[in-house]
Amino acid sequence: MDKKTHKSLVLFSGGLDSTVCLYYTRGISKVVEAISFDYSQRHNIELKKAKQITQELKIPHTIVKIQTGVFQNSSLVDKSLKVRKNQVQKTNIPNTYVPARNLLFLSFALAIAESKNFNTIVLGVNALDYSGYPDCRSEFIHAFEKVIELGTKTGVQGKKIQILTPLISMTKKEIILLGKKLNVPFNKTHSCYSPVRGRPCGECDSCILRKKGFKEAGLLDE
Amino acid sequence: MDKKTHKSLVLFSGGLDSTVCLYYTRGISKVVEAISFDYSQRHNIELKKAKQITQELKIPHTIVKIQTGVFQNSSLVDKSLKVRKNQVQKTNIPNTYVPARNLLFLSFALAIAESKNFNTIVLGVNALDYSGYPDCRSEFIHAFEKVIELGTKTGVQGKKIQILTPLISMTKKEIILLGKKLNVPFNKTHSCYSPVRGRPCGECDSCILRKKGFKEAGLLDE
Repeated sequence: MDKKTHKSLVLFSGGLDSTVCLYYTRGISKVVEAISFDYSQRHNIELKKAKQITQELKIPHTIVKIQTGVFQNSSLVDKSLKVRKNQVQKTNIPNTYVPARNLLFLSFALAIAESKNFNTIVLGVNALDYSGYPDCRSEFIHAFEKVIELGTKTGVQGKKIQILTPLISMTKKEIILLGKKLNVPFNKTHSCYSPVRGRPCGECDSCILRKKGFKEAGLLDE
Repeated sequence: MDKKTHKSLVLFSGGLDSTVCLYYTRGISKVVEAISFDYSQRHNIELKKAKQITQELKIPHTIVKIQTGVFQNSSLVDKSLKVRKNQVQKTNIPNTYVPARNLLFLSFALAIAESKNFNTIVLGVNALDYSGYPDCRSEFIHAFEKVIELGTKTGVQGKKIQILTPLISMTKKEIILLGKKLNVPFNKTHSCYSPVRGRPCGECDSCILRKKGFKEAGLLDE
């Protein structure tokens, strides 16, 4: 698919990975829109960051509100649970896992994409330097593609809405180097799961992966 | 799975099929909750009917609001489009098709089910006497089950959240006869896509299928 045919909707959290995705998508698409989700996340400061970035890029941006109570039993939405630290590469899924989150986000994106005749959904999942969430893996993405094929008008008519996951096999170092090449304003992105007065905690999985990535890339996170 | 292990969340529109499903699910579950969606549908009177039914049955009931603009390009949400009549069994998907609707509804149900440790999601899709929507067919349901298996914590841990579709291979006549057996209050359900002052139009696909079903069942719709 060449540049002229992509009409892309980017799942955009305002984090490092999805911001790199957004910049990447601008380079391959004739139309780009972004979608974010307000799900009462502990780190909802990411939405403010996301809005600033899309406003500067003049990219249409929808923030979908997910009502409280849909996601439960996760330290990202339940402040009575503590965000567990140093869970990276542990075998258990960490307590920051949010039930069916990427599925719900992709389903919203698909509803909007099919409604508006977009042919591409982009998301910044990554299955190397990640928190171990099952819905960040290519197995899940492929299963979702099958749902599009069999459960939408577009799919049964033999047309395609494709899911692009440009970062899925990249290390955090490689993502950061790609971002650098694309002039991503890293200092405007937010990664921390558990910010203290808007500042990254420096200790959660997301902070640790980000630090490691910048170190390996030989760049300063600024 | 016997009665004692089902913790069921029913996708409940307040229509004939989902009300039969709700009554059916009560008979096989130790816990039943219902979920409906307010998506600015033309026939949002169904939500009032749904609420009356769950209140009488004392079933906890969540109505999830889907913000306007997510679903577009469907006569069920866009009043500038006319609900096309007599589309039943036509080869084309009718203009009442709502992009990725059942996927989005199932994704919400899955997020809630996994959050609350429910093991069963029930929905009243039916692929015989239906409007031809791709997301009412078993192919779609099976693809969604694969998503649960690969994209949720429950799934990758080898446990199951099952999707029950008790009506999928039944004719409308059979659904109505099952409802009769379960004492479903048909007169409290709403099926019409395009009600006029709260009354069924009598001409849309949904009205036609309902009329045909009652006629074949030898029952009055009252």
